[in-house]
Amino acid sequence: MRFPMFSSPWISFLLFFLSTSVTALQFRIPRLSPIGEKFLHHSKALESPPSDDFKTFYYNQTLDHFNYRPESYITFPQRYIINFKHWGGANSSAPILAYLGAEAPIDDDLDAIGFTTDNAIQFNALLIYIEHRYYGKSIPFGSREEALRNANTLGYFNSAQAIADYAAILIHIKKELDANYSPVIVIGGSYGGMLATWFRLKYPHVALGALASSAPILYFDDITPQNGYYSVVTKDFRGVSETCYEAIKKSWSEIETVASQPNGLSILDQEFKTCRPLRSSSELEDYLWSVYATAAQYNHPPKYPVTRICGAIDRASSGNGIISKIAAGVFAYRGNLSCYINEPRNATETDVGWRWQTCSEMVMPISSDNDMFPPYPFNLGSFISYCNQLYGVPPRPHWVTTYYGGHDIQLILQGFGSNIIFSNGLKDPYSIGGVLYNISDSLPAVYTANGSHCLDILRANETDPDWLVTQRKIEVGIIKEWISKYYVDLAKNKQ
Amino acid sequence: MRFPMFSSPWISFLLFFLSTSVTALQFRIPRLSPIGEKFLHHSKALESPPSDDFKTFYYNQTLDHFNYRPESYITFPQRYIINFKHWGGANSSAPILAYLGAEAPIDDDLDAIGFTTDNAIQFNALLIYIEHRYYGKSIPFGSREEALRNANTLGYFNSAQAIADYAAILIHIKKELDANYSPVIVIGGSYGGMLATWFRLKYPHVALGALASSAPILYFDDITPQNGYYSVVTKDFRGVSETCYEAIKKSWSEIETVASQPNGLSILDQEFKTCRPLRSSSELEDYLWSVYATAAQYNHPPKYPVTRICGAIDRASSGNGIISKIAAGVFAYRGNLSCYINEPRNATETDVGWRWQTCSEMVMPISSDNDMFPPYPFNLGSFISYCNQLYGVPPRPHWVTTYYGGHDIQLILQGFGSNIIFSNGLKDPYSIGGVLYNISDSLPAVYTANGSHCLDILRANETDPDWLVTQRKIEVGIIKEWISKYYVDLAKNKQ
Repeated sequence: MRFPMFSSPWISFLLFFLSTSVTALQFRIPRLSPIGEKFLHHSKALESPPSDDFKTFYYNQTLDHFNYRPESYITFPQRYIINFKHWGGANSSAPILAYLGAEAPIDDDLDAIGFTTDNAIQFNALLIYIEHRYYGKSIPFGSREEALRNANTLGYFNSAQAIADYAAILIHIKKELDANYSPVIVIGGSYGGMLATWFRLKYPHVALGALASSAPILYFDDITPQNGYYSVVTKDFRGVSETCYEAIKKSWSEIETVASQPNGLSILDQEFKTCRPLRSSSELEDYLWSVYATAAQYNHPPKYPVTRICGAIDRASSGNGIISKIAAGVFAYRGNLSCYINEPRNATETDVGWRWQTCSEMVMPISSDNDMFPPYPFNLGSFISYCNQLYGVPPRPHWVTTYYGGHDIQLILQGFGSNIIFSNGLKDPYSIGGVLYNISDSLPAVYTANGSHCLDILRANETDPDWLVTQRKIEVGIIKEWISKYYVDLAKNKQ
Repeated sequence: MRFPMFSSPWISFLLFFLSTSVTALQFRIPRLSPIGEKFLHHSKALESPPSDDFKTFYYNQTLDHFNYRPESYITFPQRYIINFKHWGGANSSAPILAYLGAEAPIDDDLDAIGFTTDNAIQFNALLIYIEHRYYGKSIPFGSREEALRNANTLGYFNSAQAIADYAAILIHIKKELDANYSPVIVIGGSYGGMLATWFRLKYPHVALGALASSAPILYFDDITPQNGYYSVVTKDFRGVSETCYEAIKKSWSEIETVASQPNGLSILDQEFKTCRPLRSSSELEDYLWSVYATAAQYNHPPKYPVTRICGAIDRASSGNGIISKIAAGVFAYRGNLSCYINEPRNATETDVGWRWQTCSEMVMPISSDNDMFPPYPFNLGSFISYCNQLYGVPPRPHWVTTYYGGHDIQLILQGFGSNIIFSNGLKDPYSIGGVLYNISDSLPAVYTANGSHCLDILRANETDPDWLVTQRKIEVGIIKEWISKYYVDLAKNKQ
């Protein structure tokens, strides 16, 4: 354990940290989001505001679907956005593509998620985007401050409630539009891809199928080896350049050596052009871990940040030793900035919300061992204590597999369930916790050797490589088959 | 509406009624239970106490699986009972038959539910019986009084929490016994049959299959015609005797006519040998509704209560008019008692618990119209007001179909899900809300023309008719096929 975070000064620091500046990853567990680079930078404003085709609505959502306590009946406005432009209409039972919001406000997804907008015409589809509870404008208890106050109000913030929200809203919309027989395809990426998978499994009467992009539904409990994530990061870097990999691998002890010298941290400040003096070597190390993880996870064309980092590392003069090389990699990754590493940044909604989610339900045990990173075990006991001290309630690390399953998934689902596409890019370190083989004919895996996180559901681009264009075509083809078969079944059942 | 139950004296009466004496059915909605005749009589003590083969355990169950509020983490002891006698053991991954408790203490089921005990040997099965939360010895908050105090404590008493309990306990038992690959077949009847269906649909990773006996999973929302239940009761009586049917059909106005005379209620007291003077004609009518409903629902061999009632009605002298005939039917049904109709009886756990369950989640809209009963509409608004006044929270009449589905079930499930037997007896009025056709090859309906409620899962008897013996054989055969196929899949997956 590198974070001795059990004494109360540490907790105070963490709470400060949580509310003011976040650069490193909690327990070095990388974030999950379809849109990359949010973790290190402010999220950029939309390049163009969403067009008039997107209409915003609010649904009067139930706080607690699963109990009948008086407080369960509290409601809150939940935001959803509809694009009617290309819809074929209720009379023809034209399809609905429903994007399931994840751990962020829904705003950026309207622009970023291309699978819906790019394919609306060919599906004659209604497009729906639903915001996840406790994010954006979908906040219970009247304000974010109240909603996030403590475990009494945060307690309703979890995936089971979120997918029940989605069921309630989709049923509501279909009823309002008299579109009872319009097939719904749910789409999600990363954590949202888990939600899409689980939604099809739990609510088959609401969604005909799911496109689950880069959803590491198997990164829970003991299903996936804990070191899987960082072993893929390592493979990604090593695959680009053996010397780059070697430099990174050696850099950790070099940083420790420098840091332990008198004025060592100042030397590192100079090398890395830090925005303010480093507090410790681990502050730098945490940052580097997250740079490598994020670069690998979002190793998107045409920029390919892993290549960019390794190019800079390999090109840098080794005059000042490995540390200069590593710094060059950071500069290349981040671009031209006045300072690096610990630039001040406010915690985003995702920082704050996802911290709760991982500390309650979404416990993904990720460690490193025997790769380009130093060993970094995942200690469940420490994690539980940390969360318990932060929120006053412990995580439930076995609930995801209890409620959704995951162990022996092929044995379980080969004879149960249908119509889920598990899509992945194998360069994405989270793909190691995804489904990478066909569970059955109707539960296919569609992956690309060179793809990264959630690429397939992002907006199509002229620079997209062929393998990405092909992946999306395959996915569209599969969904079209589901819908065709559904219309045949529908016609039979209506007879 | 026959119950003008919205003024507070009515509520006071109902609360009194709830705690002291229950004979009639709430809103004339018949109860759901595998074991008949509980509704009108005290439940009898077990003929023989359960053998030493049944071992009792308690699991430290989570109060609220679906939230992370501090109160969610409260635990309570949940009772489960295991019979190890015939189990083939973990090494051979021998099967587990798990009976899912319903709206009653689990005690009586050990003796009554024969499907488990009668088939344990041929399956080499471990037998598990799990008690439903808030019944028997599985009470949260330390005592029944606390648990039932108000909606704050009752709020956790619902089917979603109950099946999550079952998942947690089954996972726990399999882990304790190192029986990870032992296939679990869940079995339930009536409400418990709904739980078994929903358990397989929501937790396919815990149960390989489900036997759902007499589970009216389609008697929600607008899926099944509201008058279905009483139209089957009518058909059952008419099928036995046209004259009996005619007598009952005419009796209602006759009762009203007599009751409206001076001393009319006393005449009815004499005719029906009431235990205390009738308060109103509707007290008698409510009782008769429930006699006919219960007789039809539990029209079990060898006694066949519908035949018995109609025999008595048809044989009775018509000297004193139809009312004497009806009374003769009641006497024949109840047997030789010192008095009838309103004998004092304490509310059972089932009376109290099921009243909450129907007033929160299990809203089954049942009415009568144009059959041997007088018209009796189901008014959802009145029902909601009634429940809201009783408990301070309203029912959620659309939640069952939101969470579990039900509309267009064949369209939805023909391409999703497997391994559920929907068994019914068509004489059972609740069968009208059951699944009476094969949804797919792996979602078969097994029904008998002459069967009644949950007959197939009751203990086999030498007097059982051939059609019942055959029904059980078919069910055992299907389950054996599931298990055989599972072992083949398991062997492949382990390679």
